[in-house]
This record gives sequence, structure tokens and C-alpha cells, in this order.
Amino acid sequence: MSKLCDSLRQAMERAGLKDGMTLSFHHHLRNGDHVLNMVLEEAARMGVKDLTVQASSLFDVHAPLIGHIQRGVVTGIETDYMGGVLGKAVSQGLLDRPVVFRSHGGRPAAIESGRVHIDIAFIAAPTADCQGNLNGVYGPAACGSLGYAFSDARCAGKVVAVTDNLVPYPASPASIDETLVDYVVRVDCIGDPQGIVSGTTRITRDPVGLRIAQYAAQVIEHSGLLKDGFSFQTGAGGASLAVTQYLRPIMKQMGIKGGFGLGGITGYLVDMLEEGYFEQLLDVQCFDLRAVQSIRDNPRHQEISAMRYASPTAKSAAVDNLDVVILGATQIDDHFNVNVHTDSSGQIMGGAGGHSDTAAGAKLTMIVAPLFRARLPIVVDQVLAVSTPGDTVDVLVTQRGIAVNPAKPQLKAQLEQAGLPVYPIQELREMAQRLTGVPQPVPRGDRVVGLVEYRDGRIIDEIYQIP
Amino acid sequence: MSKLCDSLRQAMERAGLKDGMTLSFHHHLRNGDHVLNMVLEEAARMGVKDLTVQASSLFDVHAPLIGHIQRGVVTGIETDYMGGVLGKAVSQGLLDRPVVFRSHGGRPAAIESGRVHIDIAFIAAPTADCQGNLNGVYGPAACGSLGYAFSDARCAGKVVAVTDNLVPYPASPASIDETLVDYVVRVDCIGDPQGIVSGTTRITRDPVGLRIAQYAAQVIEHSGLLKDGFSFQTGAGGASLAVTQYLRPIMKQMGIKGGFGLGGITGYLVDMLEEGYFEQLLDVQCFDLRAVQSIRDNPRHQEISAMRYASPTAKSAAVDNLDVVILGATQIDDHFNVNVHTDSSGQIMGGAGGHSDTAAGAKLTMIVAPLFRARLPIVVDQVLAVSTPGDTVDVLVTQRGIAVNPAKPQLKAQLEQAGLPVYPIQELREMAQRLTGVPQPVPRGDRVVGLVEYRDGRIIDEIYQIP
Repeated sequence: MSKLCDSLRQAMERAGLKDGMTLSFHHHLRNGDHVLNMVLEEAARMGVKDLTVQASSLFDVHAPLIGHIQRGVVTGIETDYMGGVLGKAVSQGLLDRPVVFRSHGGRPAAIESGRVHIDIAFIAAPTADCQGNLNGVYGPAACGSLGYAFSDARCAGKVVAVTDNLVPYPASPASIDETLVDYVVRVDCIGDPQGIVSGTTRITRDPVGLRIAQYAAQVIEHSGLLKDGFSFQTGAGGASLAVTQYLRPIMKQMGIKGGFGLGGITGYLVDMLEEGYFEQLLDVQCFDLRAVQSIRDNPRHQEISAMRYASPTAKSAAVDNLDVVILGATQIDDHFNVNVHTDSSGQIMGGAGGHSDTAAGAKLTMIVAPLFRARLPIVVDQVLAVSTPGDTVDVLVTQRGIAVNPAKPQLKAQLEQAGLPVYPIQELREMAQRLTGVPQPVPRGDRVVGLVEYRDGRIIDEIYQIP
Repeated sequence: MSKLCDSLRQAMERAGLKDGMTLSFHHHLRNGDHVLNMVLEEAARMGVKDLTVQASSLFDVHAPLIGHIQRGVVTGIETDYMGGVLGKAVSQGLLDRPVVFRSHGGRPAAIESGRVHIDIAFIAAPTADCQGNLNGVYGPAACGSLGYAFSDARCAGKVVAVTDNLVPYPASPASIDETLVDYVVRVDCIGDPQGIVSGTTRITRDPVGLRIAQYAAQVIEHSGLLKDGFSFQTGAGGASLAVTQYLRPIMKQMGIKGGFGLGGITGYLVDMLEEGYFEQLLDVQCFDLRAVQSIRDNPRHQEISAMRYASPTAKSAAVDNLDVVILGATQIDDHFNVNVHTDSSGQIMGGAGGHSDTAAGAKLTMIVAPLFRARLPIVVDQVLAVSTPGDTVDVLVTQRGIAVNPAKPQLKAQLEQAGLPVYPIQELREMAQRLTGVPQPVPRGDRVVGLVEYRDGRIIDEIYQIP
């Protein structure tokens, strides 16, 4: 019997979709993804209820999910990240069950251990053949790596590949292969390329951001980690990206040949690969078109699974070999606990993604953030959600100064010796408060709307409804 | 704790080696493999007893296994293929337990289903890093594809990578990645390149073999399968390989662009890839150096797992999409049952490998063999072992004529219409017997020394001791 289905509906019927099931989705098409919306719309038409959406991330493009929740089609969400539109609705109490937030490493660990069961995985496939060999590097919706979908494909009860670029057998490369795929369906369009490579991936021009990046590069320079084989991850935020800009001349001057760049990959890291700053890129997700082209054409730019990226249950993962990671924060407290789940008013607008995984793995975990945002200090008494525990965070870098986790006295001494402006984290908070005033306490509702599940499966915090 | 061990012994100790365990090995180093011998020698030194060797194939280089069996270090063998030296000893009653013979697709199916449990998998790794990312395409013992080792790495209790080419993290490509590997050990030499690309892979110059190959190519030409997208596998035997030589001009003249070549890959198929006769090669094992270079450098030459090659439990496998396979035989009976496990005296000197898998999958399964060998007809009343059931075999091609399975009357008509010398299989037997005389019945012992497990897990035949 052919795997090829005439319609998405037929694929969903053949996969046995019914009430109460868990459907999984990966987020490589980011804010351009059409697949999740198509599937849920079809499920709604079929009259199916009580679904759980198990997603690696959810973006604003997935706003129609709100309606599906209001109508009872969807009653549960598990995800590693949630954009602001859906986050706002969830924070206001949209769901009866709290959203379970995992990390990019914790999610595949939970799936592969069997703790999370997926009934049907929908794989958005930029290219696929009739047997389900598929990849993300060719086709009109090419997105590069499909790393977050690997565990879904391996472990789900049924696997449906949804493609708008059906090619003759055998599709090559086969990032996910036919041994794992039950059904293949061709649709008109799986995603909007504009949204796939969305706008977060440009280096900041803001002088505050540039100052932070410059300090961050200096912290790396004096960390003792910048030597041959150096490995590095940076987020796609503007200030994080800017670190690469300052790191390059330092590496060049010191004659350092890096080992690998990791994570969500941008064109900036591709440039560093091509110019010989790194030997390899390990890529679980491409952030821009240049990364997509590179992973397709450059054998030293490798696609990796989320398990290999960051799983705590893998026999080892790339994050375990990571020297330095640069991460963002909406809040950080005295104990270096970091919040990336909510904004400073407690409204959900993010999630751990790989934040807590890389923090746990990297030898040096650096948070880069402005001293204050919208007249609110970044350093707070208590974060509204602990996304990443402080014992895995080493340094906070702001435009006015640097705070080192007291657990790292040697690093503190090195940075001081290099003449960097090192302060106790409390002093950074006070510095901000002198400019912004002491912020009002944030009111919170009684009901828990989100659970933060750490990469090892422990619930480390709860996120409350906004009153 | 580092995965890197100081010695093979340390790796085996850390992996918890003890009496009664099942150790697995893959055969990409073929007759040049040092790893199986090194591991068993070390196990013998450690005083370990009662091991089962779970191998994808065993060659003459593994003759020391005989001594380990005699001394009780090894008491069980499960394999897809066994060379003549070991085969002779087994046929003479070396082991108390019968050898379990599987196919290249049945083995990973049995492993991944949990029906076969591997305690420790030893992966011969031509290149590896300290975390166990490994590949077969670089290093002094480069062998190309590592496809047969994938299921072992995925499912074994412990996985030990044995390498003679330890490279900085991260090794690239990572055919098997660090998420699956427990220990890594560097040794002086994992294998002898001369034996890795052994001598089976040259086109025959024997006029009988060439005649057979010519007929075989004509059968393909007139089978109705030779059209754009055509897919093809041939064994590495001289006559099988020669088919490619006759097929090329036919494809050229007909303007056919093939889809993929499959299986163990030789330089002959690489030539066809590069010259545009095929779009892709799907490679579970490289037979020669040219194939090794090609899988390293040509993105259209893909490494595939044994699951993807041939597993009957995969959601689909490449053999399911195969048009034509050319296979050998030591014996074939009236019902087209084929023996590739024993020679015509009943002595073990082979195994199914991918024979029964490709026969089950391909639209046209063709056996090529001389009408007689050493004065013994190839067609017999009853094969001494059923390796591949006759209902999956379509055609026998000899130098004197072609027999078509009566289940395929249309194919028979097509070949007759093309003027090919088609006979009932019984007539081919009689033709041979007129030249060789009627062979003496083969005496057999009472004890079962081998079980032929078909790809679906059923035992379809028993192999008896030689008296």
C-alpha cells in the first residue's frame, strides 16, 4: 500500500487521528510555518477534540491555535518556546491545563525515554519522496536542518511527512528516512520563506548592545578558554550575534583556530566557518538563508539531532563539549537564576529553548543583557520564572559592568586583572535602580498556567496567570 | 567521566564484559578486519567464557574464532554470512549450538525489535573522536559505509568504538554519533586495507561468466522494467558485476536514466553514477576503494543503514523500491529455491546476506550461475539449504539457457518473444546432467549445525553436519 495520501485529511485518517491524541510538530519553519495550522484546522473540521500539541516551539504565526483551544479542539500544549501572541493568551488563562515547557534537550530526552508519548508526528518536509525520505535543504520552503524533528520521527506512533516538494525516490539527503515514515502528503505550500528566516538574526546597531557585545568578547578573551579547538554558541538575538563581530579580530590576533560553532546557526557563524575561524558547524536549526545554503553545500556544516545537540540522556551531547555560550535574559536574580519564559510583567513570551541545556553544558555560560529595559532593571530580587538555574550561569554582562557568579572566583580574578568592570551582581541591580527607581512588585494571579520542566524532568518553577 | 579508554581491555571492563554475554561486530572491514579477533583475544585473556558472537558477517580472517570456540570462550554464533574456513569447522560440528543465520535485513529487524539483545557492540571505526562520533570514510582503514553497524549502535546495552584514527571533536561526518557511544578506544590498527577491499569485486573474464552476464542484461532489457527511474542491485561476484558491463550500452541506446543503484557498492556502479546512468547510489557497504572515495566525496552516493537497506520491519526499505536484483547461487531447485549457505557438498561457505531480502523486495529477481560447477549441475532436486524461497525468485540465467519461474508467465512470454533461449528449469537440469552425469546424493550427518532464519524471523531450513 502506498504511503502517499491524496490529502492531509486522508493522511490524518489513515494515521488514526482521534480525540485525546498527542500531535507533534517541529519548528524549523519558524514564523513561516503553515503545517501546524493546516493540521489543526483539518482536525477541527473532522470534529476531533481534546488534542495535545507537542511542539518544539510555537510562534506568532500559530495564533489560530487560540481559537482551537477556545473550541476544545486542543486542550493541552507542551512546547520549548512560545511567542508573545500565544503567550499572552496563555498568561490570561486560555488553557485549563498548564502548558508544560521543556528545553530543546529535555524534549527529545522525554520523547525517547517514553515519558512523553506522541501519537502522530507531523514532519514539515521541504523535500520528500513518496516513501518519506526527506530533508530540509531543497525546495521552496527550504529551512536547512531538521534536527528537532528526529526524535518525533523515531518515537511517534505514526509519522506523517507533509511536503510541497515531492521528488522522485530516493530523496537525498535523507535527514529522516523512510524506515520511520508512515504517510506522505503533498500540499500546496508548507511555509512562507519570509517567515522561516525571520528577522531576529541581525546584529544590533544599538550602541548599548554593541557595548555589551564588546565586553562579552573580552570576557571570552580572558576566560582562558580561547585556544585552539575553542567551541562557541550564540543565540540569534542582536546583542548575542554582535559578540561574533568582536570575537573575530581577537581570534585572528591570537591565531586561534576554533573547533566548532553550535546551535541555531546564522550566516555570521557560516562566515566564521568559511573564513577558517571554526572547523565545523553543528546545526540543529538554521536561522537564516545563508545557513540553509551552507548546510546544503558545505560538508563541514553538519545537521545534528536535538538529542545530539543537547539531550541530558544521550550518552553525550554537543553541549557537553561546549566552551562558551552567549545567552539572553529578560530577568536575572542575585543567584544568577535566569528568566527567558516571561517578560518583566510575568507574561509568557519565550521559553528555555536550548538556554538551560547549553548553560548546563558549557564551561562558560554568559548572559548578555542591558542593565535595564523600559525603565526596569534586568537584575531583580526574584525572577518571575526560573528558566535556567543560577548554578549553571557564570557571568552577566551589561553595558555598565560585569557580574561573575561567586562560585567562579578564579574567573572573577582573571576578568578583574584584565581591567574589566567587574561588580557584585547586587551592585549592578543598584546601579540600575538608581536610574530607574525601585520597580513595583508584579501582581500575579493564583492559577498556574505554565510549568517549567528542567532538562532532567524536574519541574523547577511555575508560571502564574496574569491577573 | 571521559569515554576514552587507555586500552581495549579497559573499554571491555568498563562495558561490564562478563560470561554469557552477546558481543556484536559489523563486517565493513571484511577480510581485513582486526577488531573481532582483538576483542575475542582480550576476552580470552580475561578468562571470560560462553560468549555469543553476533556478527553481520564472518570472513576467513576470523579463523582464530575456531580456537576461542574450542576453548569455550565463544559458544554461540549468529551471523548473516560465514566464509569457508569457519564454515568448514562449523559444518564439522565445532559448536554445540547451531549457528543462527539471518539476512542483512532480518538481523537489524531482530535487533531493533528486541528479539536479539546485544550486550556490547564493538564498532570498528576508521575515524572517531573522543566522544564516539565516528565514520568510515577517513583514516588508514577507511571502508566507506558503516550501514550494518547502525542498529547495533542504537540498541546494544553498551557501545564501544574501536579506532586507529582518533581525530579532534567533532569527527565529521558522524555516521554514528556520540549519543549512542559509551566508550572509545584507540588501537594501533583496526584493519588491513588490502583485506577490506578484497578480491571478489572484479568483473569476470571467463567466457561462461560473460555469456551469462550478456543474457542477464538482455533479460533486463526485455523485462519491461528498464525505463527512467530504473533501480538495480548486483552482487560483487564476477558474473554479477559483468551484467553492468552489458547493461550500460543498452541503457545508453534506450536513453534510460536510472534512479538508484543499491547494496554493496563497487566501482562499477560508481562509474555508472558519475556517467549519469543512475541519479543516486544507496550504499550499505563499500566493496572497493573507488566506492569508498565516492561515498566520501559525492553527495549523491549515500550511506544507508541496514534497516533502510532491507529490513522487513521498517516502515519501508530500499529493497521494496528495487526493480532488478542480480544474485548468485550454489544450488537452485525445481521450485527456484536458492542455496547460498553451503556448497554442493553441504559445507557452509556463505549465507544469505542481502540475498533473500532483495529477492523479496525486487520486482525482478534474477539468479545468475553457470549450468554446472566442477561437474555438478547448478539445478538440483532439492537444495541442501533454502537460503531464499523460490516464490521470491523470478529467473535463472545460465550460459546455456534461461528458466522463468512459472509464477511469471508474462515475463516468460516477453523473453521468448525477444528470442532468448527460455527453457523449463527441469530442462536446464537435464541439459547439465547430460554433460556431467546424475550427481551422487550428498551424505549428511544427523546433527543440525545451522539454522536459516528468514527475514521475517521464521526458521525456514536447517543445515546439517558433514559426516
